[in-house]
Amino acid sequence: MKAVVKTEAAPGAKFMDVDVPEPGPRDVLIRVKAVAICGTDIHIYEWSPYAQARIKPPMVFGHECCGEVVKVGSQVTNFAPGDLVAVETHIPDETCYMCKTGLQHICEQMAIIGVHTDGTFAEYAKIPAVCCWKLPKDTNPDLGAILEPWGVAVNGILKGEVNNRTVAVFGCGPIGLMGLGSITAWGASQIFAVEPVETRLKMVPQFAPEAVLVNPTKEDAVKTILEATEGRGVDVSIDISGNAKAIQMAFRVVRRGGRVSLIGLPGAPVELDLTADIIYKEARVFGSTGRTMWQTWYDMQNLMQSGKFDPLPVITHRMPLADFAKGIELAKSGQAGKIILYP
Amino acid sequence: MKAVVKTEAAPGAKFMDVDVPEPGPRDVLIRVKAVAICGTDIHIYEWSPYAQARIKPPMVFGHECCGEVVKVGSQVTNFAPGDLVAVETHIPDETCYMCKTGLQHICEQMAIIGVHTDGTFAEYAKIPAVCCWKLPKDTNPDLGAILEPWGVAVNGILKGEVNNRTVAVFGCGPIGLMGLGSITAWGASQIFAVEPVETRLKMVPQFAPEAVLVNPTKEDAVKTILEATEGRGVDVSIDISGNAKAIQMAFRVVRRGGRVSLIGLPGAPVELDLTADIIYKEARVFGSTGRTMWQTWYDMQNLMQSGKFDPLPVITHRMPLADFAKGIELAKSGQAGKIILYP
Amino acid sequence: MKAVVKTEAAPGAKFMDVDVPEPGPRDVLIRVKAVAICGTDIHIYEWSPYAQARIKPPMVFGHECCGEVVKVGSQVTNFAPGDLVAVETHIPDETCYMCKTGLQHICEQMAIIGVHTDGTFAEYAKIPAVCCWKLPKDTNPDLGAILEPWGVAVNGILKGEVNNRTVAVFGCGPIGLMGLGSITAWGASQIFAVEPVETRLKMVPQFAPEAVLVNPTKEDAVKTILEATEGRGVDVSIDISGNAKAIQMAFRVVRRGGRVSLIGLPGAPVELDLTADIIYKEARVFGSTGRTMWQTWYDMQNLMQSGKFDPLPVITHRMPLADFAKGIELAKSGQAGKIILYP
Amino acid sequence: MKAVVKTEAAPGAKFMDVDVPEPGPRDVLIRVKAVAICGTDIHIYEWSPYAQARIKPPMVFGHECCGEVVKVGSQVTNFAPGDLVAVETHIPDETCYMCKTGLQHICEQMAIIGVHTDGTFAEYAKIPAVCCWKLPKDTNPDLGAILEPWGVAVNGILKGEVNNRTVAVFGCGPIGLMGLGSITAWGASQIFAVEPVETRLKMVPQFAPEAVLVNPTKEDAVKTILEATEGRGVDVSIDISGNAKAIQMAFRVVRRGGRVSLIGLPGAPVELDLTADIIYKEARVFGSTGRTMWQTWYDMQNLMQSGKFDPLPVITHRMPLADFAKGIELAKSGQAGKIILYP
Repeated sequence: MKAVVKTEAAPGAKFMDVDVPEPGPRDVLIRVKAVAICGTDIHIYEWSPYAQARIKPPMVFGHECCGEVVKVGSQVTNFAPGDLVAVETHIPDETCYMCKTGLQHICEQMAIIGVHTDGTFAEYAKIPAVCCWKLPKDTNPDLGAILEPWGVAVNGILKGEVNNRTVAVFGCGPIGLMGLGSITAWGASQIFAVEPVETRLKMVPQFAPEAVLVNPTKEDAVKTILEATEGRGVDVSIDISGNAKAIQMAFRVVRRGGRVSLIGLPGAPVELDLTADIIYKEARVFGSTGRTMWQTWYDMQNLMQSGKFDPLPVITHRMPLADFAKGIELAKSGQAGKIILYP
Repeated sequence: MKAVVKTEAAPGAKFMDVDVPEPGPRDVLIRVKAVAICGTDIHIYEWSPYAQARIKPPMVFGHECCGEVVKVGSQVTNFAPGDLVAVETHIPDETCYMCKTGLQHICEQMAIIGVHTDGTFAEYAKIPAVCCWKLPKDTNPDLGAILEPWGVAVNGILKGEVNNRTVAVFGCGPIGLMGLGSITAWGASQIFAVEPVETRLKMVPQFAPEAVLVNPTKEDAVKTILEATEGRGVDVSIDISGNAKAIQMAFRVVRRGGRVSLIGLPGAPVELDLTADIIYKEARVFGSTGRTMWQTWYDMQNLMQSGKFDPLPVITHRMPLADFAKGIELAKSGQAGKIILYP
Repeated sequence: MKAVVKTEAAPGAKFMDVDVPEPGPRDVLIRVKAVAICGTDIHIYEWSPYAQARIKPPMVFGHECCGEVVKVGSQVTNFAPGDLVAVETHIPDETCYMCKTGLQHICEQMAIIGVHTDGTFAEYAKIPAVCCWKLPKDTNPDLGAILEPWGVAVNGILKGEVNNRTVAVFGCGPIGLMGLGSITAWGASQIFAVEPVETRLKMVPQFAPEAVLVNPTKEDAVKTILEATEGRGVDVSIDISGNAKAIQMAFRVVRRGGRVSLIGLPGAPVELDLTADIIYKEARVFGSTGRTMWQTWYDMQNLMQSGKFDPLPVITHRMPLADFAKGIELAKSGQAGKIILYP
Repeated sequence: MKAVVKTEAAPGAKFMDVDVPEPGPRDVLIRVKAVAICGTDIHIYEWSPYAQARIKPPMVFGHECCGEVVKVGSQVTNFAPGDLVAVETHIPDETCYMCKTGLQHICEQMAIIGVHTDGTFAEYAKIPAVCCWKLPKDTNPDLGAILEPWGVAVNGILKGEVNNRTVAVFGCGPIGLMGLGSITAWGASQIFAVEPVETRLKMVPQFAPEAVLVNPTKEDAVKTILEATEGRGVDVSIDISGNAKAIQMAFRVVRRGGRVSLIGLPGAPVELDLTADIIYKEARVFGSTGRTMWQTWYDMQNLMQSGKFDPLPVITHRMPLADFAKGIELAKSGQAGKIILYP
């Protein structure tokens, strides 16, 4: 089969023939119908320090994926050929304290599909059954492929209250945009979208029509948000950028007693004024990673079924898997939403 | 001034002249601009056992009120003549454990305006400053008068999660209708409105356009709701009826791990199948009374400012205070929404 | 092997020879080292309506069990012969909404060991691996056998706050006694133990030395508790009796804003004064059943390791499995704590 | 009267005669019976940047205080001469969003006694009635004086679960010691006390007999704690030191899904590895300042009444108010617990 393979410990990747994987007793084999490009894929392609610390070439990468089950392992009872599934990237060990208390997504021995195991930039992929989420058969595979990144936003948003609250979102890339759409559907009373890239900021109204758009390179974002909230600040601040300055602003604008959700991953330690921004305010801070298994998936399913939000417009480009390098360049440019590849 | 007075321990009331009250050092005197009729007022008018146990004639009753401050007591610093205010009916003692831990609305020595003290079916009313909520001066007084009952719904709804949840509301009188509108704005994913009176049920779509309407006299409400939720039941069940059968249904349809909020006041003990409906399900049940001071009021303010819900359509009739008896008959009929009286 | 078998749909049971069960691919076979008698076993033995509705003879019953793994099914990877395990009675289906969101113990298609499948009043028992909790090999098997009932108390207690709170426990049978010990270790500030059977009440000080003992047949329990709490009532009320009158008292004595945990299973609907006891008080009520998998088990493990509480004194009688009928009579008498049987 | 006065914008203070203050209509005048030295007092005495930014000489400072009411303002109804009171240092404005939603202690316009108003290093002090907490008349005034700092610990500890949890406390000064005693009483299952000053570390066993003592200058605190918790880390990490390195350790040792409470006030921004220590772990972080009014005070009262913890041993020195300078030097040395001054 054709697949995108990280062949060596260096920048780049090859579109080449590899063997179709054989599912183990607890795996399913899926035929990939759509796969989206994630920031992690850029790291792997560019061979960043993040990638160097984790990736062992040769390997297939890619992981935001929707596929059809074509074969199931001998011990798999809850999936059958013909099932349409979205892929949960986190592979929990199912035996640690976290896994045994309902928090598999922060498993103590977590592995990641497309990072620690072969991924889904390929015609077929072997996926642990424990990582499959069944979709109605008529689901658009593009939608199936973006559930994984959308879930990153949903998980962080729902660490606390959001309905009837003032919310500031820092970072309006694809995850931020889907987050803004979700927050709007869930009844936030006032929304601020903070993003330095104009192309992204211009996409916000499609997702959150009433959001106040804030470009922190053109105005003092903290001042704008404080003034618009009677000087009090927002109830909820959500960082999806991972940018140190944005995170500092997120803490600056949250009100006393407010909540900060941290989703974006800063590449280096961040200086925080704990005294002013957390302690005196009695702020509550929640780290959020991946998707809660499986509450986050049900949350997305509920929202889709309610008809209140459709994340598909976050997809701006679609192309064959063979064009993956072009897709990765586009993603790097910051000018695209989600990019879908078709094997 | 003119006022509606419960003159004696018997059914009825008189529209008559009484002295304008003199505010004490911590009170304000308001000129009543609009006052709505509450179920409690019907009890008082009809001299029900509830009223007989609480009311000491002669007294002015009525309490869902918006007015303009015309005079303030010597110790009142946060209100001034000209302020427009809505009235919080609960008078907390400000010294008990509840009051000192942020729960004034369940004060251990609570008094109620229009029940334990003279009320607002009058041209002027004396209100403790601690019970006044300042409104923007251009607020429609009709809106100011229905904040109190709307807050009853909001308080009960927000005892837990509601965004992205399936919610069943039992009882679609005025409070139920305003609750349904709030739940819709806050992003419930699926809503069921259960009400035996067709006139009321027909008002629901104005408040919750996507709600499934269920008339329990015409269909098996429990069956309808279970079937529409894959047999699982709803995430949240809210009773605003106080009717024993409705409450039993509310418990029957809540899912395992779900939440029941009890707002309506049953007049007699209710039989519950605790084993099947609460214990085996690990249901969570929250009693809710009045409005949390002042979180509920901020919650309403936020929702109004967001423009996502306007409770005014719950008002179906408006008339002079002199016609109070006609208003009370209308309210009793179950065919009206809120009825506003103007002194 | 020898086992206690419910041979027919009638009162009684037989101690007889049956085949050693063969574990399926996801089961383990254990050699039973100690098994305790539960109220459910009495129902089965006496052929109560509860039993008639659930039990399909012939079957082995019993389920509060500690055993040594002697054989594992082909797909079992996390247990091996020689492991000492305690048995979780609830068999989750692992596919429903509850199971997939961390609430396996309220699975929508729950089966119960010793009720829906053969149980552990036997020399050997076949147990789904998903129901096994590994113990240090030097654990006293008696302790392993009472973890299941102790967990019933722990699960209900930890539905909310308990440290530094005033707590009333209704029902001081074995589960209540172990609950009282746990509450004491977790820092409740004041404890009331309510129980009509003097033998049981006299066991309380061993578990909760500072608890106020209340026999509701000899004094007005509600009055006693209210007077001892400045008329306010307790922060937390826990019913482990399932008795309607006790449940009504539990609601009567909880303070405004307080919590009620319902653990005991009433055999018939219970009349509650919802208006006075839940709504006006804004009480919070939590149904609790079985043990949260596996948080409750970790909670017990933590408490045992801290050395702050030893539940073993709840065991008052030990005898061979062959004497099961004598044990059941003792349990019925209300004069015993836990009774352990050894195959 | 005699008082300790910050007479000018420079290091030092004078013990001198000043006028007895006159209480306003909502104040009480107390005769100070005992007053403890706080870190803030050292700042003021030494004229640190913190003090320079806040203090306007001349003023009396000091604020951890117990006194007897000798006079009440015209509008004060809930206190009377003869009452013994402890002083809550935070003066809320009672009108902002925080104050109106039960969070007066994080008032948007907070003033602090002894910082923004004259304090209690004096024979008499004028205290807003809203800042007084009534004590039983036979309370030891020393105890009354240390409720304020003890409450700082209690407020931070009770931001979440503590019973049956593993807890690491960073910083064993007087507040840390009282916190350790409280955590012990509330049933933590395992406690680590981390403190570089040996004198302080040696005081820990008096407060938390089972705590593991960790001196981070002598061993790798992170390694010690991780090894003692099976590599998982603690459930709860509490920083009461304000030291950047300690805070970083607090984050390093908290387990996935664990809680960090920040109480100590770092003097400068702190670098945190948000990705590893908060986001990937889904840690929950709670800023905590002062005492929740009045829940924290009830929490202390409950704990005292339960007899499970006595904070008095934290007092190591007692002296006349005239010796305040000696007391401040002692406090600075880090070799003392709490120091009580008597006017």
